[in-house]
Amino acid sequence: MNIHPTAIVSEEAIIGSNVKIGPYTIIYDNVEIDDNTTIEAFCEIGLANHLSEGKKLYIGKNSHIRSHSIFYEGSTFSESLVTGHRVTVREKTSAGKNLQIGTLSDIQGHCEIGDYVRFHSNVHIGQKSKIGNFVWIFPYVVLTNDPHPPSDTLLGVTVHDYAVIATMSVILPGAIISKGVLVGAHSSLKGETEEDMIYAGSPAKKICETSKIKLLDDNTVSAYPWRKHFHRGYPELITTKWSKE
Amino acid sequence: MNIHPTAIVSEEAIIGSNVKIGPYTIIYDNVEIDDNTTIEAFCEIGLANHLSEGKKLYIGKNSHIRSHSIFYEGSTFSESLVTGHRVTVREKTSAGKNLQIGTLSDIQGHCEIGDYVRFHSNVHIGQKSKIGNFVWIFPYVVLTNDPHPPSDTLLGVTVHDYAVIATMSVILPGAIISKGVLVGAHSSLKGETEEDMIYAGSPAKKICETSKIKLLDDNTVSAYPWRKHFHRGYPELITTKWSKE
Amino acid sequence: MNIHPTAIVSEEAIIGSNVKIGPYTIIYDNVEIDDNTTIEAFCEIGLANHLSEGKKLYIGKNSHIRSHSIFYEGSTFSESLVTGHRVTVREKTSAGKNLQIGTLSDIQGHCEIGDYVRFHSNVHIGQKSKIGNFVWIFPYVVLTNDPHPPSDTLLGVTVHDYAVIATMSVILPGAIISKGVLVGAHSSLKGETEEDMIYAGSPAKKICETSKIKLLDDNTVSAYPWRKHFHRGYPELITTKWSKE
Repeated sequence: MNIHPTAIVSEEAIIGSNVKIGPYTIIYDNVEIDDNTTIEAFCEIGLANHLSEGKKLYIGKNSHIRSHSIFYEGSTFSESLVTGHRVTVREKTSAGKNLQIGTLSDIQGHCEIGDYVRFHSNVHIGQKSKIGNFVWIFPYVVLTNDPHPPSDTLLGVTVHDYAVIATMSVILPGAIISKGVLVGAHSSLKGETEEDMIYAGSPAKKICETSKIKLLDDNTVSAYPWRKHFHRGYPELITTKWSKE
Repeated sequence: MNIHPTAIVSEEAIIGSNVKIGPYTIIYDNVEIDDNTTIEAFCEIGLANHLSEGKKLYIGKNSHIRSHSIFYEGSTFSESLVTGHRVTVREKTSAGKNLQIGTLSDIQGHCEIGDYVRFHSNVHIGQKSKIGNFVWIFPYVVLTNDPHPPSDTLLGVTVHDYAVIATMSVILPGAIISKGVLVGAHSSLKGETEEDMIYAGSPAKKICETSKIKLLDDNTVSAYPWRKHFHRGYPELITTKWSKE
Repeated sequence: MNIHPTAIVSEEAIIGSNVKIGPYTIIYDNVEIDDNTTIEAFCEIGLANHLSEGKKLYIGKNSHIRSHSIFYEGSTFSESLVTGHRVTVREKTSAGKNLQIGTLSDIQGHCEIGDYVRFHSNVHIGQKSKIGNFVWIFPYVVLTNDPHPPSDTLLGVTVHDYAVIATMSVILPGAIISKGVLVGAHSSLKGETEEDMIYAGSPAKKICETSKIKLLDDNTVSAYPWRKHFHRGYPELITTKWSKE
């Protein structure tokens, strides 16, 4: 353990081996941080709140939480979570391994998130969102959930594997983004979608197959499915499989 | 009083009874915090600035300011203010009771805000905004004020009682949102509006009466006016009156 | 020097004369802060990261960095930088004098920024952006860079002198915003533009010459070029020249 002397760490928190905790960071009671994880400065990890119903916060091994981030108790993150700065994560979210959460992003809680998901900066994930594996969500995207705000109805968004939501799009309550869909920047999307299609505009309409977009650097190669050419940050075991698809 | 030993509290600040102040929080000189209020960790309360012209910051009783929030001196909040995390509030704003300000929201100052107003996450309230009672503003909404930026003209937005502005809408300078209006998500609205109508699109157009939207869970009931069915967080005295309207 | 006792300042950092460092702020090793600069509370200045390749962070004289801000090592800011709160600045950005960065704004690094540039609140400047002099970018604007996300292609946005991008617009990868252009609020712009023209909508189209917009307070005066009437915060030497143009 490598805990900065100004950090405030509850004696009730379970801290694994080789965990680093930065200056002025607060670790509350109901927390388990697994081995080889780094928590940077000015974080709050495991904030108590009654909506967690006593469930602890679990941060998997080999994770890295950057400074000024806030995690409530009551969520579970598998290994190799990586965050930017000033991330907020509320209660009762369950996420797979290798989740990346960009600076200023806000996960409102009560979400299910798969493996290798990437949230870029300033993404807002509403309650009851269900997100598959290998999903990309770009800056200033909001997943909403209330079909007639304000109300007591929560109708989360579903995002399937390999889907991409580009910058500053709003996904309306109950929308279903199918496998491999690309939502263009600055769109507003509702309802259902077809796999591997592009949707864009406000309201978003089906444009064409994603495979029609070619790489700027080589217009003989389709830019989608992106997993055929973009491999940075994924294990070789996975990218080799993708290349053979 | 329950002040964390790492908090830095000015001796000139007026602190009521049963006030809690969290770790590493700074309370500056020109501040009055009323009874039973909680200020969480890493906050700055009462930041000095010349635009406040010496006016103090007043936080009413029974308030709860969540961590990493920043309030300048020179504003007044009635009782039961509740904020999310990382809220920024500039000088010379006056707000009624039971205001809620969501995580990352930024109130630019020089605003008038009524009672029981709800700002969700990451809302940006430009200077000179005038907001009535029981208003709802959802994530990533911006109220602007400069009709030809940059300029020295400040023409704030007016939002009347019970109005709702949905996610990621821009309200243009001088727009007047009438009582009970619903602005749809991802809209850009300017000019005047009629009461209890829906406006949506970019530029936003009048769509229909809000009462045409039915509750998803019971399509015999109109979703608007929302005060007929949504009562969470309001005093019974008020909701009883709403039910009888 | 005026360093708060709770600040953590590396002995390797180079700190000029009359520098103020606020409570709980951390100054890392690879940093030079020039004379008469103020760093407020809860900041992190000079965060190490391998992408900086050992290059230091330089903050010019007479700068003011507001609280909760984070600067990585590896960028250079000329004199009189002013920031709001919770600013994030990544590595390898080079900026001229008198840059203003609003609260919550995020400069992703690898950018070139001229003199007297103004970023308002919550602006997101993607990697490889090139920004001229006297540019204005308003709240919730995003400059993007990936033409087919996710990919390894980075195609930054170029913004020329005196251009203005209004609230909540997305500028698409490789777009070129010419001298004096005004991008209307809530627009989505791609491709090239003509000098001193207005572009608005999603997708943005050319509307008319900027000079067609008149000042609200005096409709005999064009609101653009803004430098003919708006002089707040610029040196008299410059504004006198503008008046004579």
